[in-house]
Amino acid sequence: MGEQAINLRGKFDLINEQWSPRVIAQMNDYQFKLVRIQGEFIWHDHPETDETFLVLEGRLRIDFEDGSVELGAGELYVVPKGRRHKPSACEEAKVLLIEPRGVLNTGREGGARTAQNDVWI
Amino acid sequence: MGEQAINLRGKFDLINEQWSPRVIAQMNDYQFKLVRIQGEFIWHDHPETDETFLVLEGRLRIDFEDGSVELGAGELYVVPKGRRHKPSACEEAKVLLIEPRGVLNTGREGGARTAQNDVWI
Repeated sequence: MGEQAINLRGKFDLINEQWSPRVIAQMNDYQFKLVRIQGEFIWHDHPETDETFLVLEGRLRIDFEDGSVELGAGELYVVPKGRRHKPSACEEAKVLLIEPRGVLNTGREGGARTAQNDVWI
Repeated sequence: MGEQAINLRGKFDLINEQWSPRVIAQMNDYQFKLVRIQGEFIWHDHPETDETFLVLEGRLRIDFEDGSVELGAGELYVVPKGRRHKPSACEEAKVLLIEPRGVLNTGREGGARTAQNDVWI
């Protein structure tokens, strides 16, 4: 009896919007989310948790108040809890986010860029 | 001031042994571990936690007592807490494991295949 693995490219094909994380799997109380990123996001932080970015395609930049990091495909970065950051990408980047269930994309900033949370594909 | 992303391929180049997970990053109390897998592992389970496998290169098979799943590159699977499983790979597979810090590769089975835990590269 074969079970189905979760194919990341196949799941990305189901996502049309940018900046709208979609949940593909859950491990304990953590979720794996796919998101298409292009342009600049807002400055925000997550006071309660670290947040992991793993770039699958394209390039992602994360600005901090005192520096920045650039991630290419196959690169990972953990943004520490409470550290203000601003993701951006010139061309579209496909990113796997890993963080506890319930974390909003805009952290405690809120506002117009806040995506609906906990949407599975 | 540029910070350094964690390059998964670069980290794999530092790992010579198979079945020896190496920690590359931590998010809260969860760790990201890289492991080279070839041949058959032992049956085991992790009674306290789910465990995530993301295949980066090659193919991984996970047998369960009532089925199996096959993962190719870019595919992910979460083994539920307490479910007995046996990973295997004909050719070498490069795998990213995600699980809480402190989880042993052999779960509660122990024995000769138990790798040293919490080794960073």
